[in-house]
Amino acid sequence: MNFFSNIRVGWRASVGLTGEVLIYLAGPLAFPLVLALYYGESALPFVAAIVVSVSLGGYFRYLSDPDENLGPREAFLAVAMIWLLVAAVGAIPFVVAGVGTIAHPINALFESMSGLTTTGATVLQDFSLHSQSILMWRQLIQWLGGLGILILATAVLSELGVGGAQLMESETQTKDVNKLTPKISETARLIWGLYVGITVTAIAVFYSIGVSGLDPNMTLFNAVAHAFTSVATAGFSPEPESIGAFAPIVQWAVIPFMIVGSTSFILLYFFIDGQPERLLKNQEFHFYLGTLAFFSSLVALLLFFDTEIAYGTEETIRHALFNVTSLVTTTGYASIDFDLWSNGAKYLLFLCMFTGGMVGSTTCSIKSLRWLVALKSFRRILFTSIHPEAIKPVRISGKPVDEDTIRDIYSYLLLSIVIFGLLTIFIVVNGERAGSEIPAFDAMGAAASTFLNIGPAFGAAGPYGTYDVFPMSTKAVMIVLMWIGRIEIIPVLVLFTKAFWKS
Amino acid sequence: MNFFSNIRVGWRASVGLTGEVLIYLAGPLAFPLVLALYYGESALPFVAAIVVSVSLGGYFRYLSDPDENLGPREAFLAVAMIWLLVAAVGAIPFVVAGVGTIAHPINALFESMSGLTTTGATVLQDFSLHSQSILMWRQLIQWLGGLGILILATAVLSELGVGGAQLMESETQTKDVNKLTPKISETARLIWGLYVGITVTAIAVFYSIGVSGLDPNMTLFNAVAHAFTSVATAGFSPEPESIGAFAPIVQWAVIPFMIVGSTSFILLYFFIDGQPERLLKNQEFHFYLGTLAFFSSLVALLLFFDTEIAYGTEETIRHALFNVTSLVTTTGYASIDFDLWSNGAKYLLFLCMFTGGMVGSTTCSIKSLRWLVALKSFRRILFTSIHPEAIKPVRISGKPVDEDTIRDIYSYLLLSIVIFGLLTIFIVVNGERAGSEIPAFDAMGAAASTFLNIGPAFGAAGPYGTYDVFPMSTKAVMIVLMWIGRIEIIPVLVLFTKAFWKS
Ligand SMILES: [K+]
Ligand SMILES: [K+]
Repeated sequence: MNFFSNIRVGWRASVGLTGEVLIYLAGPLAFPLVLALYYGESALPFVAAIVVSVSLGGYFRYLSDPDENLGPREAFLAVAMIWLLVAAVGAIPFVVAGVGTIAHPINALFESMSGLTTTGATVLQDFSLHSQSILMWRQLIQWLGGLGILILATAVLSELGVGGAQLMESETQTKDVNKLTPKISETARLIWGLYVGITVTAIAVFYSIGVSGLDPNMTLFNAVAHAFTSVATAGFSPEPESIGAFAPIVQWAVIPFMIVGSTSFILLYFFIDGQPERLLKNQEFHFYLGTLAFFSSLVALLLFFDTEIAYGTEETIRHALFNVTSLVTTTGYASIDFDLWSNGAKYLLFLCMFTGGMVGSTTCSIKSLRWLVALKSFRRILFTSIHPEAIKPVRISGKPVDEDTIRDIYSYLLLSIVIFGLLTIFIVVNGERAGSEIPAFDAMGAAASTFLNIGPAFGAAGPYGTYDVFPMSTKAVMIVLMWIGRIEIIPVLVLFTKAFWKS
Repeated sequence: MNFFSNIRVGWRASVGLTGEVLIYLAGPLAFPLVLALYYGESALPFVAAIVVSVSLGGYFRYLSDPDENLGPREAFLAVAMIWLLVAAVGAIPFVVAGVGTIAHPINALFESMSGLTTTGATVLQDFSLHSQSILMWRQLIQWLGGLGILILATAVLSELGVGGAQLMESETQTKDVNKLTPKISETARLIWGLYVGITVTAIAVFYSIGVSGLDPNMTLFNAVAHAFTSVATAGFSPEPESIGAFAPIVQWAVIPFMIVGSTSFILLYFFIDGQPERLLKNQEFHFYLGTLAFFSSLVALLLFFDTEIAYGTEETIRHALFNVTSLVTTTGYASIDFDLWSNGAKYLLFLCMFTGGMVGSTTCSIKSLRWLVALKSFRRILFTSIHPEAIKPVRISGKPVDEDTIRDIYSYLLLSIVIFGLLTIFIVVNGERAGSEIPAFDAMGAAASTFLNIGPAFGAAGPYGTYDVFPMSTKAVMIVLMWIGRIEIIPVLVLFTKAFWKS
């Protein structure tokens, strides 16, 4: 009792917001339910999930207190709870369907968390076992995860200044961390239309390739499924061979949507709202496109000069550009099994995993803005080593960056890399303990790919492989790290400080 | 001509200081020369090195200009030149002796740079081929490297604030970066006696184990050889099995000298100068000892519960403590071939490589102070995420740390890890190109071990192995990175900025 009576967090506000989201979740769950009825498949998995979601949400609303304010602490708690509980509810259909690897609760939660966090790492073994409605639910939960992260990034993390997120270009920043609720609604309204619009465009483009006969495999089902997970830079596919299952023209068509999904939605909004220069002159945008160009060219060169690979010119450029874009934007699609490439190409792809697109987008990983600030600040450190008396602010798109923000960004980068390193070691050592030897590079790939929410890794967990090769205990830890990574680490870590609950 | 006439660096001052060091180098080179005469071995390798060193040094003195001031830029240039040229001169005896793997110029430079930077990675294959005087030169160059780094760390880097080095506890900080020359002489005088005193003590302790018959293999030669490289936390040994060639009592005796060599010499000086509390109450000292205790206990536990390892209790504790101390202090000795341990133990040892002892000591790697500041600052970030209005300085041993220093430390940590990562990739990819496949973990070990100046790695380059397994081009890059790593990165990187030469 003493513990609870001392709590200084307005947890009823967090629980209230979480309850609201859980109730809303019934809406999207109705989509695979309708699909199941249409295809004559079992609707029970989705009915069960809807019942749990609405009941739990209702109970949470009952516990909530409308007078409690959603401040920074309450927002952190709500964010952590929402991502955890929506993933749990999202796993219910897999368990209830009871088919294949994902019938196991840990696997189901892995698949659902991988979906919601737009990671795209899968434990599916045999795709053909699963019903269309279950496969579409995997896609839809990623699309929801993409929307969730857009709202989180633009309305919440930027206000709370997590890892320098306050640098994000935004007209609507309130600078008042005690007024998060109106901010969230306002941003959601703004972003929502744009996100739906881009998704509908993607469906139209993909499906037109299908109906025109250029690739008959691009059915309406596949067009919707891949529109969901390209705009959300998420990466699930109902096809075991990912985008490699489609014609080259489909692969070309997917690339721009991955790039748009990783572009700041605030700047995209300005772009269509008559201020295109705000996007086009943005330094982070340039840096992000430069990253894509740099790694694509390097990988293309390596493929071109690789005597063991005999791609034509278009093929070389396409596979280099597609897979680099997929990993830089953290989508995680593959146009081919890049695990068969040379070490040089694979390590380059591995480096791509640490880049990420722009802040304020659906992208995961470190993100271009943080690397750009770190690089500029480092260049200044070299300069001030020579001129200790010089005062020279770091500027992004002309605006000076606060020194505390630079420090926070460095600390975020370091923390990400340290967690990645520890997860790698855990994967190797836990694998050895469980009797399944995992090579160091494959472990590095899987660690980066789950924690940074990319999707595919190398070796057995490569783009055409499955995370089912890992022991259950490793998958359980990966679930936690996909969750922590997606909501940018800090909202979870603060929950483990005494100050969060008491001071 | 235009390039040179625009140069704004007082390079004649840097060249003058470098020349002075090269002339001084003749002194220590006389030691193996005398040893060669005593053992009836060829003295030519050392005569050649002395001639080159004195001539080059004399020419540099001739080029120098006593009126030019040694400011920050000139100091960076001098530091980079001194470490490069002393390593080059140090390689001459190996080439002139013309025996074994180190007769090849790149191997000779590798061995010499590995010596001078107190790395201790070796390309020797057959130790028995080499003369006593050549083997002792390997040891002595490490001892010189330890002395050099002590002076660099306490007198130069702390003044220039490289990677937060200004935090080092020091009474003598002048805060006047234009008065480096008197500062260097003053600190050298203070440190010199302490360094010699500890070395002599180590010789006495080791040799007493030899003459008392506890381990007849600990001859005077071996006592001197290992005193040189334990106090310098350097790691070369004339024995192919390193300290594993000696009795357990020798292994126990070496541990305290590695620990002392990694303790701040400024604080050691206070300790014997009647102010022991300045060392004993120092937070970095506590953190450093805590790191040793933490990793030793974990490794001991893993060894204890490893069913494939059948050590007795004393043996388990000794091997855990010895090898953890060896890697945390960056010495690089081994008491046993730890490459044969489980992945769990090996990855823990790998983590130890990134810690390091205290600033202002002979230790290499990141160093405890930087990790301590990063940890404390990170704890504060969690606190201020909840209380954005709070102002709470990070304190080390009670003193607040400057915010710019915290940022520099983060950037130094990040830079180190990024360079380590890129070097790992280079080792793998270049190995593949040259037709010698190197597993990712072995490459990670070798990258960390060379760049962070530890010595042994894992796999073929393990503690009882040799770096001769790497292609020449990989070894050439490792030479550069041992050099960059030892002088704390920044002094080399600034040389590649335009501002260094022109502004
Ligand atoms: K993804
Ligand atoms: K060493």
